[in-house]
Amino acid sequence: MKENLALLTDFYELTMMNGYLKNGMADKVAVFDLFFRQGRESSFCIACGLEQAIDYIKNISFNKEEIEYLRSLGSFDEEFLTRLENFKFSGDIRAIPEGTVVFPDEPLMVIKASVFEAQLLESALLNIVNFQTLIGTKAARVVRAARGKGVLEFGLRRAQAPDAATYGARAAIIGGCVATSNVLASQMFGTDPKGTHAHSWVMSFDDEITAFRAYADLYPTNCLLLIDTYDTLKSGLPNAITVFKELREKGYEPVGVRLDSGDLAYLTKTVRRLLDIEGFPNAKIFVSGDLDEYTIESLHYQGAQIDVYGVGTRLITSHSNPSLGGVYKIAEFDGNAKMKISNNAIKITNPGEKEIYRIYDGTTQMAVADFICLKDEQFDFSQPLTITHPTERWKKQTLDNYFVKSLYVDVVKNGEIVYDFPTVAQLQRQCTNSLNEFWSEYKRLDKPQVYKVDLSDKLYDLKQELLAKGGKR
Amino acid sequence: MKENLALLTDFYELTMMNGYLKNGMADKVAVFDLFFRQGRESSFCIACGLEQAIDYIKNISFNKEEIEYLRSLGSFDEEFLTRLENFKFSGDIRAIPEGTVVFPDEPLMVIKASVFEAQLLESALLNIVNFQTLIGTKAARVVRAARGKGVLEFGLRRAQAPDAATYGARAAIIGGCVATSNVLASQMFGTDPKGTHAHSWVMSFDDEITAFRAYADLYPTNCLLLIDTYDTLKSGLPNAITVFKELREKGYEPVGVRLDSGDLAYLTKTVRRLLDIEGFPNAKIFVSGDLDEYTIESLHYQGAQIDVYGVGTRLITSHSNPSLGGVYKIAEFDGNAKMKISNNAIKITNPGEKEIYRIYDGTTQMAVADFICLKDEQFDFSQPLTITHPTERWKKQTLDNYFVKSLYVDVVKNGEIVYDFPTVAQLQRQCTNSLNEFWSEYKRLDKPQVYKVDLSDKLYDLKQELLAKGGKR
Repeated sequence: MKENLALLTDFYELTMMNGYLKNGMADKVAVFDLFFRQGRESSFCIACGLEQAIDYIKNISFNKEEIEYLRSLGSFDEEFLTRLENFKFSGDIRAIPEGTVVFPDEPLMVIKASVFEAQLLESALLNIVNFQTLIGTKAARVVRAARGKGVLEFGLRRAQAPDAATYGARAAIIGGCVATSNVLASQMFGTDPKGTHAHSWVMSFDDEITAFRAYADLYPTNCLLLIDTYDTLKSGLPNAITVFKELREKGYEPVGVRLDSGDLAYLTKTVRRLLDIEGFPNAKIFVSGDLDEYTIESLHYQGAQIDVYGVGTRLITSHSNPSLGGVYKIAEFDGNAKMKISNNAIKITNPGEKEIYRIYDGTTQMAVADFICLKDEQFDFSQPLTITHPTERWKKQTLDNYFVKSLYVDVVKNGEIVYDFPTVAQLQRQCTNSLNEFWSEYKRLDKPQVYKVDLSDKLYDLKQELLAKGGKR
Repeated sequence: MKENLALLTDFYELTMMNGYLKNGMADKVAVFDLFFRQGRESSFCIACGLEQAIDYIKNISFNKEEIEYLRSLGSFDEEFLTRLENFKFSGDIRAIPEGTVVFPDEPLMVIKASVFEAQLLESALLNIVNFQTLIGTKAARVVRAARGKGVLEFGLRRAQAPDAATYGARAAIIGGCVATSNVLASQMFGTDPKGTHAHSWVMSFDDEITAFRAYADLYPTNCLLLIDTYDTLKSGLPNAITVFKELREKGYEPVGVRLDSGDLAYLTKTVRRLLDIEGFPNAKIFVSGDLDEYTIESLHYQGAQIDVYGVGTRLITSHSNPSLGGVYKIAEFDGNAKMKISNNAIKITNPGEKEIYRIYDGTTQMAVADFICLKDEQFDFSQPLTITHPTERWKKQTLDNYFVKSLYVDVVKNGEIVYDFPTVAQLQRQCTNSLNEFWSEYKRLDKPQVYKVDLSDKLYDLKQELLAKGGKR
């Protein structure tokens, strides 16, 4: 990510900011919610990207070059350009921590600032949070399908440009991948890079066994051989076993073999049996090649013998659904709640500055519902709590044995960062913990149970009032 | 894109480079081909990303920080680290210029360098070229579907991280988009950023007409109003028409209206009719909202009245197919042709250092076939030319009235750049010209005609010889 992304914005953010300035509205306080409307495959998402979102905000700087460029466009006057020159975010940001399970309509970030400042951030914040949340979520699904077997992130070469490779690897690790092959991402996020050799290594030698021997000589403690360059069962595996035996004579045990093509169910079963027969029951089988949560689940049901999955293209691009439709919508302006109306009910927003509580069953300690209310509402959580379906008000439930946790943390106050960003390793643990709070029915890959995200009566009533008035209070 | 992406590589590239060094092979010359195997939707691709690929190579620098990180991994010795410290690409690169129509199995870039240097580049070159080529190709399809109507790139907020937004916008413009809303991309690539206002602008005012008036007052010569915040036909359009009339009284003509939701076929027909009735036949209708080449084609057949398409998510992520499976395969090592064998015929590579000629019919001047041969082959193109199907040798054709063009240019010689990179505007024209060389049957969106990419007899024979010998000569 380029450090100063001041110009990474849609042009209309600037024309609107100029408009706010010219209409005396630039310093009015607005509240913007960043949220997604629905998952396409998953019922939940893993919140990711907050640290980079804040980095972006912190580093915004309209320097001489940026100002000169904007001046050259002929749309802006000096008053506006001077204000940009002095731009520094001075508002407040609350957010749901990275690695948390989140649901549709729950603002991942709440930006409260002058409309001038808050408007600028829209496009870049969405870009950063949409992508990492997309990949963190996909990774959680892939890791779940792998049922405890390791998943490595291998997607650099197919990621959508360098940032996607690097920040996608970050999100993949938060979502549960054990490591990435991407050296830059490993350096940036403090994980050990993984990988051995490619087909080109084998092809650079006169024959496969010479290539394998050379590799084993060089990395005797990390001998993982790719066996599908010429023919997996007729050439690759027998050559690997020969080299493994030579390695053992020198006092080393091989790590195992990797397969990158062919029918992985059949081949891994055969390879496992032959490795066992030849005395290498501890040699691991790594596989790669267009894997995702669906192929991994299928391989599992076919009894494939796989110890580690290398997942590339389909994770790093979230291939089956390569975008998260996160939006950034105004919820309050100058003290007045605002709501976007639409003929499409799903596009009607929740007005006002909000709080979210996650409600847990007091006995099982599992999450049972989320509860969105207005920020200034007071509740006595020692009393039974009644919550209402967001659109069908006759669907209510009353909880008595429960406890709640607020989902938000303060991240920025008056422009200053007041939050310690966890390491990626910590975020991975937070993600595991957050996922463990949900029954598996909410997490199954296909047709998951819909988790309840209800509204307080006060928020529900405000919505109805604004709907009746056409979105304006 | 971060300037120095030395560590943007898969770990195995480094373990292999170390292996080449330890086995006395590091300075052997290798030829690597970067190509894709098959398009998934399109039969062709638009080559894109070369300039950034070369920028990446030029800026590789293993500085103190990178070396210390690699040392900390414990896999590499000082000999290897010193060699990295002195890394500077000193080889040759030939490439097909950006904006050129290319087909499966045609190397977009040919890297000829020491295997030590060439191996490092694999992951990052694929990352850069795969993504831009994917988006350039998608843009060409979307622009084709728009049949001469303008297409604007609006995908920043849904792009897969900042680089994807910016370099995706570049590729989209090469593929034919007239502009982007992304200000940073506009600055970097010399186009005018486009955009007006969002729903939040309208929602920040007490009512819609006040918001429209404020916008028209501020930008009287660029008055394009978004009319779907509350209700397109009952509120947005009547308010826009009122403001357009006021604008006209002040001596300005409106640009038009934008719709971002609803049934675009029905709404645009109604909006067109009402704008015409009210005296604004020149007011344009812009639409956006989950568009791609398929919805645009459908809108066209439905008679929708649209002047400009704003295309976001589905272009910038190539949503229907979000990855290009480009690979980087060794074709020659130390003077010997190399070939990757596979049970899957499509994965068998073309060995040796190659040349590609595009063959044109002498009368129609349209492209009729591409012809891949070995680089050192000599042909007398004044004589009839016989070309052979790449796998089915009995499929031959002989051409007499034809002319040829070589697809390659020299980009780097002995590590020095010897190529003037065209501007993005020039590349857009090159792309249009290249597309115009092909009959539309090759370009149709669904089930395009397969274009012939044939091999010379000599290359065909070499492949057979290597196949018989298991890939090694």
